[in-house]
Amino acid sequence: MNPAKSFRNKRVLITGGLGFIGSNTARRLVDYGAIVTLVDSLIPEYGGSLFNINGLEDRVQVNIADVRDRHSMAYLVQEQDYLFNLAGQTSHMDSMEDPYTDLEINCLAQLSILEACRQHNPGIKVVFASTRQMYGKPDYLPVNEKHLLRPVDVNGINKMAGEWYHILYNNVYGIRGTALRLTNTYGPRMRIKDARQTFLGVWIRLLVQEQPFEVWEGQQLRDFTFVEDAIDALLFAAASERANGRVFNLGGERPVNLKELAELMIAANNGKGHYHIRSFPSDRKRIDIGDYYADYACISEMLGWQPRVTLEKGLALTLDFFRQHLDNYL
Amino acid sequence: MNPAKSFRNKRVLITGGLGFIGSNTARRLVDYGAIVTLVDSLIPEYGGSLFNINGLEDRVQVNIADVRDRHSMAYLVQEQDYLFNLAGQTSHMDSMEDPYTDLEINCLAQLSILEACRQHNPGIKVVFASTRQMYGKPDYLPVNEKHLLRPVDVNGINKMAGEWYHILYNNVYGIRGTALRLTNTYGPRMRIKDARQTFLGVWIRLLVQEQPFEVWEGQQLRDFTFVEDAIDALLFAAASERANGRVFNLGGERPVNLKELAELMIAANNGKGHYHIRSFPSDRKRIDIGDYYADYACISEMLGWQPRVTLEKGLALTLDFFRQHLDNYL
Repeated sequence: MNPAKSFRNKRVLITGGLGFIGSNTARRLVDYGAIVTLVDSLIPEYGGSLFNINGLEDRVQVNIADVRDRHSMAYLVQEQDYLFNLAGQTSHMDSMEDPYTDLEINCLAQLSILEACRQHNPGIKVVFASTRQMYGKPDYLPVNEKHLLRPVDVNGINKMAGEWYHILYNNVYGIRGTALRLTNTYGPRMRIKDARQTFLGVWIRLLVQEQPFEVWEGQQLRDFTFVEDAIDALLFAAASERANGRVFNLGGERPVNLKELAELMIAANNGKGHYHIRSFPSDRKRIDIGDYYADYACISEMLGWQPRVTLEKGLALTLDFFRQHLDNYL
Repeated sequence: MNPAKSFRNKRVLITGGLGFIGSNTARRLVDYGAIVTLVDSLIPEYGGSLFNINGLEDRVQVNIADVRDRHSMAYLVQEQDYLFNLAGQTSHMDSMEDPYTDLEINCLAQLSILEACRQHNPGIKVVFASTRQMYGKPDYLPVNEKHLLRPVDVNGINKMAGEWYHILYNNVYGIRGTALRLTNTYGPRMRIKDARQTFLGVWIRLLVQEQPFEVWEGQQLRDFTFVEDAIDALLFAAASERANGRVFNLGGERPVNLKELAELMIAANNGKGHYHIRSFPSDRKRIDIGDYYADYACISEMLGWQPRVTLEKGLALTLDFFRQHLDNYL
């Protein structure tokens, strides 16, 4: 599928638009000729940064607003053709320490965004960034969409509700919506200050800073999606009527364990870098999910999506980006 | 299992305590020698009524408060041995018309009750009244707990989140909790003014008022739990350490279709009464789930629970109650 033509001269709203995935999606959409508005709250603990649209400032509209602000959202969804609904609280640990904020952003704001669409723009198509976190500890691998949802943290529960509001509004009100259950997404413009998006951000920062990084245990299997592949999936889902009301897993090129990933990172860094293996901190251990990797056959069969960027190439591109722009991400 | 001795001189808090299931549970617990406090907001559209504790007034403590009132709940959970967490917005239609209120009661308040327990009374045991509504349209019958959750209305989504907060707080913080997925529960003290708890309430009222009632389509299979059986399950779950962190379906003596149920009701009413078959109203049709009945083998095997009251007997007891007390329920 080549979705480029679906977006020419189309009005697109991206919540979390100054964040990692949002800003990269904006770059692609601008290339495709879309008229793009980015909504972001720029809360310092989240992923939004004006530097993420460096060079793109004149080609997008930026609107600073929080998705919890019902009045702003009711206005902003109007006359949009597509909504990439990417704003979210992503930190598992933060969701345990402050469950109310996670609920406000990941449940309540999602419901109010959908109500805004229903009341002001029922013809919009919405693509929601969901998460594999809601599967919890897998019963089997790879995990497909028939796997039970058994979230292990507040974030997983609230994202589960947020995802289902989208499916419900599609099914009951015809507000077309698709949810993608993202796994670890990485690439240029990701948050590397801390592990709030993924632990991989911290690894990348430390590697670029020529400091050793920590690998917890190391045998856990994970999958990783390069951001440009994730954007493919978002755009395919937006452009396809068959995707309406569906939930799809994304996945990675291949599963790797964390120790293998650490080695791949060092190889992508021209062989330079060091890491230490350590055991899990206890507060992380109790919400850890063990091994995970996705079966993405469903989106592959229905929309023709698959990861195209190898881990080797994706990690090299990511490290290159942060070597050039490190100061803007600290 | 005879749970009576588990509750002697134990302090028990019941949210939704003036409601249908809450007030009947209170009666049983008082008989078992428990020290019972009932929390209820007495919002007219919900199930609470002071008449529900008629004759019991001197043997329970009544505290009017809304579960959304975080401060009151933080105080009320203190020093309780058990919490039967039964307060909820139960109407599927109301949840679609006012999704925010449903979210506040069924998600946010549940999270804040659990936070109150974590901070003020981590030794409490919580039993949560969940619902089979979150299964949506079944893939297979009978539905067991391995069935995917695919809620078809806002109420189902929010109850799903509320249920999972309980399981999460059990697993992560050791706040012992069990969730029961109730199906249609019926019996004395149910809401019969309208269909906010179950359509069966309206049937019962009209039958007692000697008016015809409506059966929508009539071929849908459903299961029905008599309230005393539901109370058995609540008490078994509270008294069993093996139930901690578990989710159990309740079920009925046998599945019946709605036309058969209508006939059983008339038989239980000494052969008197009339009904009309009509097609579904369109706003109900789109959130209807088709046939449903539960597989309750899980709670049966683990806790020895099973429905003991036949539909014939349960309906007769219910009709008797409302013939005596109709004026208090209009």
